[in-house]
Amino acid sequence: MDNFTYYSPTKVLFGKGGEANVGEVIKGYGFRKVLLHYGGGSIKRSGLYGVIMKSLSDAGIAFVELGGVEPNPKLPLVREGIALCKAENVELILAVGGGSVIDSSKAMGMGLMLDGDVWDIYRGLVVPAKTVPVGVVLTISAAGSELSNSSVITNPDGGFKRGHNNDVCRPLFAILNPALTFTVDKFQTACGIVDILMHTIERFFGTPAQTMLSDSFAEGLMRTVIDAGKRVMANPEDYDARGELMWASSLSHNGITGNGRTGDWASHQMEHEISGLFDRVAHGAGLSVVFPAWAKYVCHVDYARFAQFAVNVWGITPGNSDEETAYAGIDAAKAFFKSLGMPTSLTDLEIGADSIKPMAEKAYAWRETMGFFKPLRKPDVVEIYKLAL
Amino acid sequence: MDNFTYYSPTKVLFGKGGEANVGEVIKGYGFRKVLLHYGGGSIKRSGLYGVIMKSLSDAGIAFVELGGVEPNPKLPLVREGIALCKAENVELILAVGGGSVIDSSKAMGMGLMLDGDVWDIYRGLVVPAKTVPVGVVLTISAAGSELSNSSVITNPDGGFKRGHNNDVCRPLFAILNPALTFTVDKFQTACGIVDILMHTIERFFGTPAQTMLSDSFAEGLMRTVIDAGKRVMANPEDYDARGELMWASSLSHNGITGNGRTGDWASHQMEHEISGLFDRVAHGAGLSVVFPAWAKYVCHVDYARFAQFAVNVWGITPGNSDEETAYAGIDAAKAFFKSLGMPTSLTDLEIGADSIKPMAEKAYAWRETMGFFKPLRKPDVVEIYKLAL
Repeated sequence: MDNFTYYSPTKVLFGKGGEANVGEVIKGYGFRKVLLHYGGGSIKRSGLYGVIMKSLSDAGIAFVELGGVEPNPKLPLVREGIALCKAENVELILAVGGGSVIDSSKAMGMGLMLDGDVWDIYRGLVVPAKTVPVGVVLTISAAGSELSNSSVITNPDGGFKRGHNNDVCRPLFAILNPALTFTVDKFQTACGIVDILMHTIERFFGTPAQTMLSDSFAEGLMRTVIDAGKRVMANPEDYDARGELMWASSLSHNGITGNGRTGDWASHQMEHEISGLFDRVAHGAGLSVVFPAWAKYVCHVDYARFAQFAVNVWGITPGNSDEETAYAGIDAAKAFFKSLGMPTSLTDLEIGADSIKPMAEKAYAWRETMGFFKPLRKPDVVEIYKLAL
Repeated sequence: MDNFTYYSPTKVLFGKGGEANVGEVIKGYGFRKVLLHYGGGSIKRSGLYGVIMKSLSDAGIAFVELGGVEPNPKLPLVREGIALCKAENVELILAVGGGSVIDSSKAMGMGLMLDGDVWDIYRGLVVPAKTVPVGVVLTISAAGSELSNSSVITNPDGGFKRGHNNDVCRPLFAILNPALTFTVDKFQTACGIVDILMHTIERFFGTPAQTMLSDSFAEGLMRTVIDAGKRVMANPEDYDARGELMWASSLSHNGITGNGRTGDWASHQMEHEISGLFDRVAHGAGLSVVFPAWAKYVCHVDYARFAQFAVNVWGITPGNSDEETAYAGIDAAKAFFKSLGMPTSLTDLEIGADSIKPMAEKAYAWRETMGFFKPLRKPDVVEIYKLAL
């Protein structure tokens, strides 16, 4: 086991109807004014917006609001939110939505503590030591941002998609009601399933430390997501299955599945170049394309680890060699992604070979290697993108 | 899945040599004066006391100290500590030890916030809303108090052992260095293994909610403890195995293995009557006696759940019926406890049939039922103690 720090202070309020209590929760912390931050308006169509407005009013919480967060949340809206929060003396940012809304809220919360520009955080020039707190009402099971220390923001000026990891941005509380995800469509649900799996897969691979407890959590979470994922795709209103996915989304990215080892994260980094350049590509869809190619390119480094993944996660019967079992596991993952209706090639995403060089160039503009399972240099990444064609 | 709240804010600092950094950790939080609280002096013999003294001094942290915590920590020392902390304006209580020291520290921290007597908390008369924070340097893997919301104190005046659960008493930080447990003897190590398993077993049983993710965590944790437990008994200086046990001890009692269901806890409650009356009985040893008897008495309520326990935790091949598989799992658990050198009957503990009535009387002095898997009334508990003879 490697040394590690584990810190997941977010208070989770899980269950039916929790969103109607958000005002009382906020009041309990002593906050009096919040920014209500959300996306494209689906919370108005679903009625959630009204429930939250009423809960805030009933609890005597004043608020201003800022909607319009897009997938791959954008820097200009973050800057707009920071200005608004400053002008209105906002004490807490209430993110009502999924990963994009939460990441945008985290960026604002941290940015509010700076004298300089918020993008400096994502450029690695400054590490905020505190934040205006973020609370969450989650509406989609996917990114895990509700418990994570991570925020990813896209700067449209150049198409840069960059992440910042910092314990200060872990949300103060997260209200998780699986019923709020009944209306998430099949494609977004499937993207979420891939995203949840990938957060744990990235942690499962990486450096070769012995981590039996973390492995058992990782494997159990992935088996749960595969099982619940199938049930949710068949019946979008299966509360228990939606619940397993929602809780798995949070635990797949708070650190619990990878303590004691360093995760890999190369698949995420390669995906960031895809959706950074092609804004139409959903994060989960990009991951679904990258992972099988990455796995085939790197598995020779440790077939036994990939065989463990195949047997304990995908239920593969061990073959004649770890190599054979390893490939069977990768094929099973790819087949599962396909069964969800996910793309599994760049071609499926309508991205051609001509985009590979620009993506690889951008990825290596500021780093030497990517990943830990097999540290990848630029030519490796080019090969992986080619495998993904 | 039942509704749940999950809150585990303790910052975990896991790895080699962490104790030498405790002064800097405390300084980072801004505290200037601490109470160093510990047990019977083993930390002086091992040299840990000196390491911590030096770390506090180097960081400029002032401290007073109070040793002498006994197993089944006692109320008079808690009262003494509260008086000392008040007189010395202590800002943080640093627990250096295991569950007893941590529970004693939590009692002091909460008691310091009351006008009245600290025992009122454990009598259920008052619920503290805040605490003087507790930090931990853990020296034994067992109770899980380093992340839990629980504190158990014994009042020698009457032999009452009572617990209080309250999120405010979750420690601020926990320094976990598996190497500090190399010198824990075989009996105490075995007691810890049973205690860790039981914290998860209690959560695994209880109400019948569907909780696939929590189950997979619970089962994975138990498999890990069984495996690492065997390795540690064979080689007490196996760092990775000690590490698995230490991390499992923390996660077995912070809530993560039982979210979405209500745990049972009757075995714990019956054990509290044993070690409350017989101070010489270690908590783990009492649990090792109670659980197999409890399981045999209640398993008819849901053989399928016990069969799942048998197959997924103990690796039992399913028999001709869930009933058969269920009993095989209980036998496997009892055999494992025996293999660790643990007692598995009241006779092993030198407790006779004449003690059953007083223990049952005391248990029901202030409650009607015990447990949820099968709510137990006084005659049930008498029968279970008889089965344990």
